[in-house]
Amino acid sequence: MKIRPAEVPPLAANVPQAAPSEVADLLRFAPGNSFAAVDPEATPGFSGSKADGKVAQSLDNAVLSDLQERLFANAAVNGLQHSVLLIIQGRDSAGKGGLVKHVVSALSPHGVEVAAFGVPTAEEAAHYFLWRVYRRLPRWGNIGVFDRSHYEDILAVRMHGLAPQKVWAERYDVINEFEEGLHESGIRVVKVMLTISPEEQEERLRDRLVRADKQWKHSASDISDRAAWGDYTTAFQDVLDRTSRVGAPWFVVPANRKWYSRWAVTRILINELQQLGLEWPQGDFDPAAELARLEASRPKKS
Amino acid sequence: MKIRPAEVPPLAANVPQAAPSEVADLLRFAPGNSFAAVDPEATPGFSGSKADGKVAQSLDNAVLSDLQERLFANAAVNGLQHSVLLIIQGRDSAGKGGLVKHVVSALSPHGVEVAAFGVPTAEEAAHYFLWRVYRRLPRWGNIGVFDRSHYEDILAVRMHGLAPQKVWAERYDVINEFEEGLHESGIRVVKVMLTISPEEQEERLRDRLVRADKQWKHSASDISDRAAWGDYTTAFQDVLDRTSRVGAPWFVVPANRKWYSRWAVTRILINELQQLGLEWPQGDFDPAAELARLEASRPKKS
Repeated sequence: MKIRPAEVPPLAANVPQAAPSEVADLLRFAPGNSFAAVDPEATPGFSGSKADGKVAQSLDNAVLSDLQERLFANAAVNGLQHSVLLIIQGRDSAGKGGLVKHVVSALSPHGVEVAAFGVPTAEEAAHYFLWRVYRRLPRWGNIGVFDRSHYEDILAVRMHGLAPQKVWAERYDVINEFEEGLHESGIRVVKVMLTISPEEQEERLRDRLVRADKQWKHSASDISDRAAWGDYTTAFQDVLDRTSRVGAPWFVVPANRKWYSRWAVTRILINELQQLGLEWPQGDFDPAAELARLEASRPKKS
Repeated sequence: MKIRPAEVPPLAANVPQAAPSEVADLLRFAPGNSFAAVDPEATPGFSGSKADGKVAQSLDNAVLSDLQERLFANAAVNGLQHSVLLIIQGRDSAGKGGLVKHVVSALSPHGVEVAAFGVPTAEEAAHYFLWRVYRRLPRWGNIGVFDRSHYEDILAVRMHGLAPQKVWAERYDVINEFEEGLHESGIRVVKVMLTISPEEQEERLRDRLVRADKQWKHSASDISDRAAWGDYTTAFQDVLDRTSRVGAPWFVVPANRKWYSRWAVTRILINELQQLGLEWPQGDFDPAAELARLEASRPKKS
């Protein structure tokens, strides 16, 4: 009995949107591009309304889920050694947490691993800066999602003066070598830099100050960091220039409109997974014989 | 400036459903109850249609998410030492994985930790049976979800003859002491036993045999386990009788209708969290002064 592998469900055709590979091409950072010139209000590759975006998103979620499950199944059954690592960076309130929630919600919980990297714990700080990152790499078949990452070992260290320039400036190369090793070993590295406008950030930080259910998220340092807006812009630009590589590209994603940034990152992930061209694994059993066993196993009524 | 703590959003009032504490009371197992007598088709506490169930579910998800975030915020800001551990057991194809996905989707990814316990790895098997379980206990403020658990160290071991009775029979008491320690330390333990009918299981296992996208999930042992239906019923009954305790109750949840089991478990979790009576933590800052700082931080147009 031959079973035809199911097709990946179709991408939404009735909304004005670019194909996954086109979205990736539109947002992929090329060294020399200007980070500051990316308009945080823009919606590259999507010319519809927010309502169109929601429709497209819900269909794309099913596609992403299907592709992820193929990856998981092939790792489980065929020993396929591939995984995806999605690294998310951006200013305070750029929507990193919401994006993580969105991606996770679309996937099977057993196929996704989330790690948030905050101020290093005493144990983490007692190690080489990539130690805690290595420990959270996704297993084969999974999508790993990093909410902040080893890039804070450049960005936060530089901006908060936690170590001399000599220390953080050497890390661009160390990170490039690390990510190159991941890529060569089968981990597809996708790096997303969310970008918001100062006005949008002001709105979001104000929300945290005036809403009782958000006050606990307020941190005085968010406002100091905001006051150093231009210095952060420079630091982001340097990271993008120094660490955008073929096997570990950065995507600069406009994030004033949350629905857009989620749609765009979903398309970027779909594009990555589609390139693996995965079919469903065939079972190594005879379906007819197993169906007969199943019917014979019917318990007697007690 | 005094901010009134936001109220928890209201529970859906327009569908015929029991309150969270009533649902918990209806499904909580009392030693002496019969596991086999629970009708897997039933929907205790819910007299509406599946469509009503979907409406109720989407409102309940927002309530659960709000309560979980209060728990998380109080742990982060006030050092509150509480967490919730949801343990899910049930026969093959009872819907454990789907239930995990549902609960996770409703929550912030940083507030939930999922662990699936399969056949022990070599490292796990080289330790005391609770070793791997201790390592996956949720941190304060989080909801931990176990897809299978230390109960497999009784159930699977007993049913597959992996160790003599002396070994697994001692574990009821060991587990009771373990869970009592969790409860006394601030971890609210909620144990869910999903129950399906043999007919429903047959449908679901058949799906795995005939659908190309599900074949990889088929395991020959699922059918052998099914053939031992009555022996499993006895093993479940013994677990329920021996390990239902005030601080670590079992809930037997009918699971032929997936929408019902998800709704019921959501209500059980809401009931647990409501008992903590958590307000939003107050920020330890002066909102007016921080608002002024925020406005002063507006970056100059470059």
